[in-house]
Amino acid sequence: MTTASLTQKTWPSSDVVSDLAEVRKHAPLTHVLTNIVVTNWTANVLLAAGASPAMVIAEEEVSDFAAIAGGVLINVGTINSFDAKSIKAAAIAAQKAGTPWVLDPVAVGALRYRTEIAKDLLQHKPTVIRGNASEILALAGAVGGGKGVDSTAASSDALPLAKELAISTGAVIAISGEVDYITDGKETVAVPGGHILMTKVTGVGCSLGALIASFLGVQKDALRASVSASAVFAIAGSRAAERSSGTGSFAVAFLDELSTISA
Amino acid sequence: MTTASLTQKTWPSSDVVSDLAEVRKHAPLTHVLTNIVVTNWTANVLLAAGASPAMVIAEEEVSDFAAIAGGVLINVGTINSFDAKSIKAAAIAAQKAGTPWVLDPVAVGALRYRTEIAKDLLQHKPTVIRGNASEILALAGAVGGGKGVDSTAASSDALPLAKELAISTGAVIAISGEVDYITDGKETVAVPGGHILMTKVTGVGCSLGALIASFLGVQKDALRASVSASAVFAIAGSRAAERSSGTGSFAVAFLDELSTISA
Amino acid sequence: MTTASLTQKTWPSSDVVSDLAEVRKHAPLTHVLTNIVVTNWTANVLLAAGASPAMVIAEEEVSDFAAIAGGVLINVGTINSFDAKSIKAAAIAAQKAGTPWVLDPVAVGALRYRTEIAKDLLQHKPTVIRGNASEILALAGAVGGGKGVDSTAASSDALPLAKELAISTGAVIAISGEVDYITDGKETVAVPGGHILMTKVTGVGCSLGALIASFLGVQKDALRASVSASAVFAIAGSRAAERSSGTGSFAVAFLDELSTISA
Repeated sequence: MTTASLTQKTWPSSDVVSDLAEVRKHAPLTHVLTNIVVTNWTANVLLAAGASPAMVIAEEEVSDFAAIAGGVLINVGTINSFDAKSIKAAAIAAQKAGTPWVLDPVAVGALRYRTEIAKDLLQHKPTVIRGNASEILALAGAVGGGKGVDSTAASSDALPLAKELAISTGAVIAISGEVDYITDGKETVAVPGGHILMTKVTGVGCSLGALIASFLGVQKDALRASVSASAVFAIAGSRAAERSSGTGSFAVAFLDELSTISA
Repeated sequence: MTTASLTQKTWPSSDVVSDLAEVRKHAPLTHVLTNIVVTNWTANVLLAAGASPAMVIAEEEVSDFAAIAGGVLINVGTINSFDAKSIKAAAIAAQKAGTPWVLDPVAVGALRYRTEIAKDLLQHKPTVIRGNASEILALAGAVGGGKGVDSTAASSDALPLAKELAISTGAVIAISGEVDYITDGKETVAVPGGHILMTKVTGVGCSLGALIASFLGVQKDALRASVSASAVFAIAGSRAAERSSGTGSFAVAFLDELSTISA
Repeated sequence: MTTASLTQKTWPSSDVVSDLAEVRKHAPLTHVLTNIVVTNWTANVLLAAGASPAMVIAEEEVSDFAAIAGGVLINVGTINSFDAKSIKAAAIAAQKAGTPWVLDPVAVGALRYRTEIAKDLLQHKPTVIRGNASEILALAGAVGGGKGVDSTAASSDALPLAKELAISTGAVIAISGEVDYITDGKETVAVPGGHILMTKVTGVGCSLGALIASFLGVQKDALRASVSASAVFAIAGSRAAERSSGTGSFAVAFLDELSTISA
């Protein structure tokens, strides 16, 4: 594995290697509540990385399942009033059981309904919040400028408010962009090396949120787990881009790289 | 770009080139309400072509979003009573805001419930209606002969009734088939060049409806926008077929071609 | 087509060839009610094999559609209280109309809500029940040990209870694993030849359940239909594995092989 160079702080690549090996060894059960666009892709990403994804969405089942899972992802990308009940129940159960969970506030800021839902979920103490700069800014209470699900701000622009959000919520904040920034409000790690093609395949960012939840199943240091998952993504993305001839073959190569990155 | 030869009328390929360039330049926000089978594929098709897809489905959000989008797609493929409310709200909002929108009447004619829904949606003035021959015939009031989602009629068979449907609804009608026919009731354009493999990957037709919505975001002439999107699809499809060894690699190659067609 | 060697009983490969040819000739309409993770993949698998998939999920539509379909799949993978009504209605309609149907009890045993639903569905006489060993054991009333959707038991371990389940329900039981076992309680057929990569792409097992429903549309002997579909899968899987460089390219190659297996 190549070294993921980190500008703000030098992160040992041996930690990434070790965390990935733990994921492959333990195949952490990852409870994924995500949007209907990316369910299939997310499951394939987690399987490729060695985790064990399960999309359980019934209000009757999510509490039990969030309690036994290694990590939970809650993504509000296509939320509606029916699924909102399950998402709320899963967040409550994860908090109660001490299961680490990741919040992905897709398009928060651009749409009021989901913004209220995402802000309400903060009281259940997400372990990690992953989003693009616009989403993080919106969640931090800034006047949002997001256009749909694509960020209109650079990831570094969101860093000051992201640090404040980390302090006020207790969550690690992972801002996705050309460079990913991950902060707990005190320490900040930059993970460069992503590729523009990663924004041309739907759900790459969403599946990173899910993979962070998988890594949290084996690595309790949330900052480290988030960095390791992001580094694995950056490496797979840059390798895949080298042998792609468009967005279709990039997506295929990305899964191939994820499934064959050696520890 | 090769010339898309058009039998009924000669359509300048320079228009196709110009419209695609506009999509890539402006990345029109496309509000997609589609069936659960094709969400991922549709998002990837739109991203490959250069548009900005967003699947927003909550009844609480669709009206606001349809108003700010460049184009809206409504596809009834897996409609149920819950999503029907969102779809109705989106159609009303699009009409009110003047956002162009596309209706895809999947399997209308074969199933009564969705046939009623699709006919009801006509009062909200879709800009374009895209379907196969059976669906268009059914929507035009003919006694349908569709088997599920596959057409049992040739696209040319539906042309006379499609013209009447165009006149009575004010919509451009795009009939998909071996040759696509696109008509506003007065002018009719034929777009040949599709490939049989396009019917062996789920959602190709559905994603064309979405791409027409994207093109409507940059090209207000609905006949032209529909022809341009269809021509781009035909070109990508025939190129992809040349280098495929089955349906799996065709789908990948189709996205690759879409993402690399040069303007 | 290579011979699918069968340990318990020698199954003539000419039957597999003949059944696949019938699927390609008649393109049986297959009514698929499945989980939101695998809808797209399942549709592409069925199209590649030559069947005609249709995902119709509205409670208002499922009864009519199950009655006219050649086969129905009911998969409870992401069931919730809304879809449970449609699934129940589809099972009732299939039974009443004499349409063969397949039950896929995903994660039954691990979660109580869906376990109750699956057991209730048994009264509507599924033609085939397809699952992994843990799921079949749970459905057979054993104390389940499933972890999410992945089996923690070997397929052969489930065989004795599977035979009892077959006798008590009248269904053919298809247990997926390294070797697939298919039994009607009297005869048991083993289909070897699958590949570990088939467990690293989401929905491969789920789509086998759907393909069995397609085969039931042309082959009324449920044991034979299940064996033929499983053999086609095993062949496509082992061929695809030979030319894959990871899980992404395996999925693509699997569809390619399915779509080009010659009869």
